[in-house]
Amino acid sequence: MSAETRPPVIVLVRPQLGENIGKAARAMLNFGLTEMRIVAPRDGWPNPSAGPAAAGADVVLDRAEIFETTAEALADCTHVYASTVRKRGMTKDVVTPEQAAREIAVHPGRSAIMFGREASGLESEDVALARKLLTVPINPEFGSLNLAQAVILCAYEYSKHCDLAMPTMEDIPPPAPQDELDGLIAHLENMLEPKGYFFPEDRAEATKRTLRSVLTRPGWNSLEIRTLRGVLSSLQKCDK
Amino acid sequence: MSAETRPPVIVLVRPQLGENIGKAARAMLNFGLTEMRIVAPRDGWPNPSAGPAAAGADVVLDRAEIFETTAEALADCTHVYASTVRKRGMTKDVVTPEQAAREIAVHPGRSAIMFGREASGLESEDVALARKLLTVPINPEFGSLNLAQAVILCAYEYSKHCDLAMPTMEDIPPPAPQDELDGLIAHLENMLEPKGYFFPEDRAEATKRTLRSVLTRPGWNSLEIRTLRGVLSSLQKCDK
Repeated sequence: MSAETRPPVIVLVRPQLGENIGKAARAMLNFGLTEMRIVAPRDGWPNPSAGPAAAGADVVLDRAEIFETTAEALADCTHVYASTVRKRGMTKDVVTPEQAAREIAVHPGRSAIMFGREASGLESEDVALARKLLTVPINPEFGSLNLAQAVILCAYEYSKHCDLAMPTMEDIPPPAPQDELDGLIAHLENMLEPKGYFFPEDRAEATKRTLRSVLTRPGWNSLEIRTLRGVLSSLQKCDK
Repeated sequence: MSAETRPPVIVLVRPQLGENIGKAARAMLNFGLTEMRIVAPRDGWPNPSAGPAAAGADVVLDRAEIFETTAEALADCTHVYASTVRKRGMTKDVVTPEQAAREIAVHPGRSAIMFGREASGLESEDVALARKLLTVPINPEFGSLNLAQAVILCAYEYSKHCDLAMPTMEDIPPPAPQDELDGLIAHLENMLEPKGYFFPEDRAEATKRTLRSVLTRPGWNSLEIRTLRGVLSSLQKCDK
């Protein structure tokens, strides 16, 4: 057994529509999963409806492996999850996609997540092959996840443990230094003073504090402060 | 103003296909979200293609509200997220669906997540209305999330917080509703217009967008907005 962790294999057991296989491929590749295995697809393989639905995720379909039985598809896997909407009176642990992803990310060895046919889900004998059940916690009054949606939630959760293109805040400029903010506040105060904004005088300090508070909280960067200085300068101009 | 937290509103801006609106409704209801707002749907409303694609989530479609402009759709919202695949050189925080869900779950007030049209996403002027960008960290070599997939990931992440007694930040007043912010921005624009601030005219739209961005980011509460309106009124007075 290898000590490295590997992304999970997505195993579609007896899927019915090629279109749904394609959509599942697309969902997988969006989050970096590329290994699909298909057990006894109803309409054979390749399926001409799969490609268009994959919306460019052809690499997943091209590499998809076909098996006759679920047991063969899972032969090299050490952690097998059966995606199911309901418990079937089986004494297996039930995990969420989030928990499964966490386990897959830390356990060495090959993991697989099985999904059953669109209409009826996994058969009991397929579920029996799994170590755990994977169930998406869903609206009890409207549970209507389709295959690709179930796949994408699992792929998405797994991707949190990989280094995908996480949005960084590197490109967001830091707040301006305090003296630039002070410059803005002084500018505004100087404009407000002759308008009587700080009257009566015994309230002036409190009013200034309030104003400073309002203008400090945003954490504007230098560019934004410059923009606002421009606004103030413009307001000081005589009307055109 | 209520201190309770509420599930986010899903705002579809100029969606193209009724089928995608229906799929988005299904994605929402799977995770308990029911409030959909639609801005200027291309093919009008109701759309006969939406129902079948919703796969039973009719309650979401029946209650969907239609708006002519994005600003109207967001008028009562205090936390607005713009779902976008790429940064547009705007200085806004970028959050993942997970982070957004966490924020929405603890902040009092109304939250909204905006999604743009299927082909091209949100326009810059829509993005400008948002306080933060919401970006799904995705396979950099294959980013191909469709509308319903993006919606389901957001709804799914939010649903994780529904059963939890999350502490709320009751003592911190929530940001003012969007229409109060709009009032402030309009007030300032009206003052700047006669000063020639928006000259030359072909730059006016971009300049207004920049200004809106700078004033949207703080997330000022109603009291702060009132203070700033007072500042502007004061500046409009003749010198004493």
